[in-house]
Amino acid sequence: MARIAPLSGFPEWLPDGRVVEQHVLDTLRRTFELHGFAGIETRAVEPLDQLLRKGETSKEVYVLRRLQAEGEEGQDRQLGLHFDLTVPFARYVLENAGRLTFPFKRYQIQKVWRGERPQDGRFREFVQADVDVVGAGELPYHYEVELPLVMADALGALADVGLPPVRILVNNRKVAEGFYRGLGLDDVEGVLRNIDKLDKIGPDAVAQALAAECGATPEQAKACLELAAISGADVGVVDRVRALAASYGAASDLLETGLAELGALIEAAAVRAPGVVVADLKIARGLDYYTGSVYETVLVGHESLGSICSGGRYDTLASDGKTAYPGVGLSIGVSRLVSRLLSAGLVAATRGVPTAALVAVVSEDQRAASDAVAAALRARGIPADVAPKAAKFGKQIQFADRRGIPFVWFPGSPDQVKDIRSGEQVEADASSWEPPAADWWPRVVPGA
Amino acid sequence: MARIAPLSGFPEWLPDGRVVEQHVLDTLRRTFELHGFAGIETRAVEPLDQLLRKGETSKEVYVLRRLQAEGEEGQDRQLGLHFDLTVPFARYVLENAGRLTFPFKRYQIQKVWRGERPQDGRFREFVQADVDVVGAGELPYHYEVELPLVMADALGALADVGLPPVRILVNNRKVAEGFYRGLGLDDVEGVLRNIDKLDKIGPDAVAQALAAECGATPEQAKACLELAAISGADVGVVDRVRALAASYGAASDLLETGLAELGALIEAAAVRAPGVVVADLKIARGLDYYTGSVYETVLVGHESLGSICSGGRYDTLASDGKTAYPGVGLSIGVSRLVSRLLSAGLVAATRGVPTAALVAVVSEDQRAASDAVAAALRARGIPADVAPKAAKFGKQIQFADRRGIPFVWFPGSPDQVKDIRSGEQVEADASSWEPPAADWWPRVVPGA
Repeated sequence: MARIAPLSGFPEWLPDGRVVEQHVLDTLRRTFELHGFAGIETRAVEPLDQLLRKGETSKEVYVLRRLQAEGEEGQDRQLGLHFDLTVPFARYVLENAGRLTFPFKRYQIQKVWRGERPQDGRFREFVQADVDVVGAGELPYHYEVELPLVMADALGALADVGLPPVRILVNNRKVAEGFYRGLGLDDVEGVLRNIDKLDKIGPDAVAQALAAECGATPEQAKACLELAAISGADVGVVDRVRALAASYGAASDLLETGLAELGALIEAAAVRAPGVVVADLKIARGLDYYTGSVYETVLVGHESLGSICSGGRYDTLASDGKTAYPGVGLSIGVSRLVSRLLSAGLVAATRGVPTAALVAVVSEDQRAASDAVAAALRARGIPADVAPKAAKFGKQIQFADRRGIPFVWFPGSPDQVKDIRSGEQVEADASSWEPPAADWWPRVVPGA
Repeated sequence: MARIAPLSGFPEWLPDGRVVEQHVLDTLRRTFELHGFAGIETRAVEPLDQLLRKGETSKEVYVLRRLQAEGEEGQDRQLGLHFDLTVPFARYVLENAGRLTFPFKRYQIQKVWRGERPQDGRFREFVQADVDVVGAGELPYHYEVELPLVMADALGALADVGLPPVRILVNNRKVAEGFYRGLGLDDVEGVLRNIDKLDKIGPDAVAQALAAECGATPEQAKACLELAAISGADVGVVDRVRALAASYGAASDLLETGLAELGALIEAAAVRAPGVVVADLKIARGLDYYTGSVYETVLVGHESLGSICSGGRYDTLASDGKTAYPGVGLSIGVSRLVSRLLSAGLVAATRGVPTAALVAVVSEDQRAASDAVAAALRARGIPADVAPKAAKFGKQIQFADRRGIPFVWFPGSPDQVKDIRSGEQVEADASSWEPPAADWWPRVVPGA
């Protein structure tokens, strides 16, 4: 087997890294389920024409071809790998609308693929964890408050294993649109697209672009930049935006609607997830289908990683011509997160194998006795393995030690079990012995 | 969004079907971990040249192309989606050999893709659950006994939710090869390939093929068919094979080695998984890399579904030129299994949402009180949701009923909780109330 080398952009973990990733996935899933989200999984492929409906992402799609399909093209509709979980979810909702109940809350944890140039924190294959609520015809605003708090809960549940605090930055498209239109700037999408570049190119370059691309006067550009500079974790933010709008004569009903929504979100978040949610008026999100709240999330101390959890409200996730399906959702970039947790040594697994106890083998013709001990332990939920060979006990202990297995079991009359870290060895019975809770399964703990 | 229709060969489940699939996956994972297998996940793609090393499967591979990669071809190595988890595992072992400890026991539960014509039980995208043990240089025989017993344990753990009993059919390549060579038939692969068709085309057609393709005399063909007809769950099988070989003068050392191994497996299995493992001398397995035990598994009463769990021993899973990595493993076709469980109504989920209690909303301005109840329940691990609207209570109860949510919570002074199945309503406190264990999470139960 020639040329074995990692493929850039396709991350894989060693077993102890996988323990960390699995813990993250389990924690997210549990939190999503506690909040009443049903889990679904969609196929990895979608018809190419569906994937290309948003032109913007077209260049990232991996197209599939059956190796032996020459001459058969046209029989099958062209397929591509999904690049997010939103497009497949929208299709799933339409395909199954008659069999789902709305509002439908679902979580979905799957791999997605993008043919992008790989770089730090950007992969070609990665895992996303999404939550969305979708309504049939209507979806109450309160879900725009609930969804980021679900993510705050999910990410907060990882704090004890070493995940740094997160900050969820929120804005509202109605605020931005109301403000820009109030100023007399009608190319809302253009302004948002340029404001989105603020962190990258700085305020001066944004002001120039607003003038050049959106026809903004210097005063209009200044107002947009002043709005983008507003942020804060309390409802005082709303007053500051309102005062800014008034000073430019940019008040509008749409702005007021947006401010009421943003205020409600900030107020609820201050109670339910104190210190986590911050209004940040420069959050624009590139995608033009957001119509209300928008969210981005940074890992405190790792802001350069970019957003690890983003999303927003869209009035039309999907439509079958008769019914529109509005939704709100967020997506965690699990691989990006796990990759950073591992590479920065923020978290560690206590061991890379599940095994709590290795049962030694006295001699090969007594292997059945060791198998029976392991079976008795497993029957009580204790992960156990049997030594590969009836080698000298020192070798068998070494086998356990190399894998981080804390206990070695010696069948005999009576059986004994040794904690190979302390060296303590005691009599034990496979029908009643238990490892300490902390040793039972591999755990994920903050890095040293 | 036009033309929403399922894609043939790409199965998806509704939320309650996903509860069943998730339960199967969780049960397999737990059993594998109890047996000391470490979980890994490999990327979905491999270089095409690696995937095509076994010519046989080449026509099933999905090749990837970046949509905007015209003119860039040649910069990237061509990639395809993996069609099993064995090829990627072999590559992972070689790539990480220096960082793994051997024997390395791993499980891997992932999707695989094959561009085959879809039919009942055959999908283009499906989930496999694999366990393998791989050694560096050597791997003791006892793992060939252990691995099918792990699968017996894993599948047995699903009996209580309605999985029919399984029968694991085992054979040993050394027995077959020793017997054929003893007869004077040296095209072992050719004979195996034809014996593999026995169930499909019957003994007469196989005898003709053995004559035509492998140069077998009528007596040699008869002997092969007599061997293939032997099966049984006790070591008497070994004696019958030995007697048959003697009657044809086909005894050999290789045959004896194989019979000793097969006998040891049958003997251990009779103790550890009584009634599950059956020696069946017609089991051939198409793939030519097996060198010892081979396994297939049928669901009793659903034999037409084909094997749901197959595998075997291979002396060279991978090799880096210096070290060969022998292994033994089996793979469960999870999608095939789940698809049958659902379509035949063998199992059912008690509900399709995680929610145990829906908290009613008295009026929209009191929504925060309902949110607080839900938060208190979730903090104690009880999945809870809040009604989408402060509608009439009857409507809110209906919302729960449609989803199979068993309890509706009414905030008040004091709070009350109603079991909407019995109608019983009692006072309750969100800091102490618990649902009955059977209602806590959705469960998977035998179908009606």
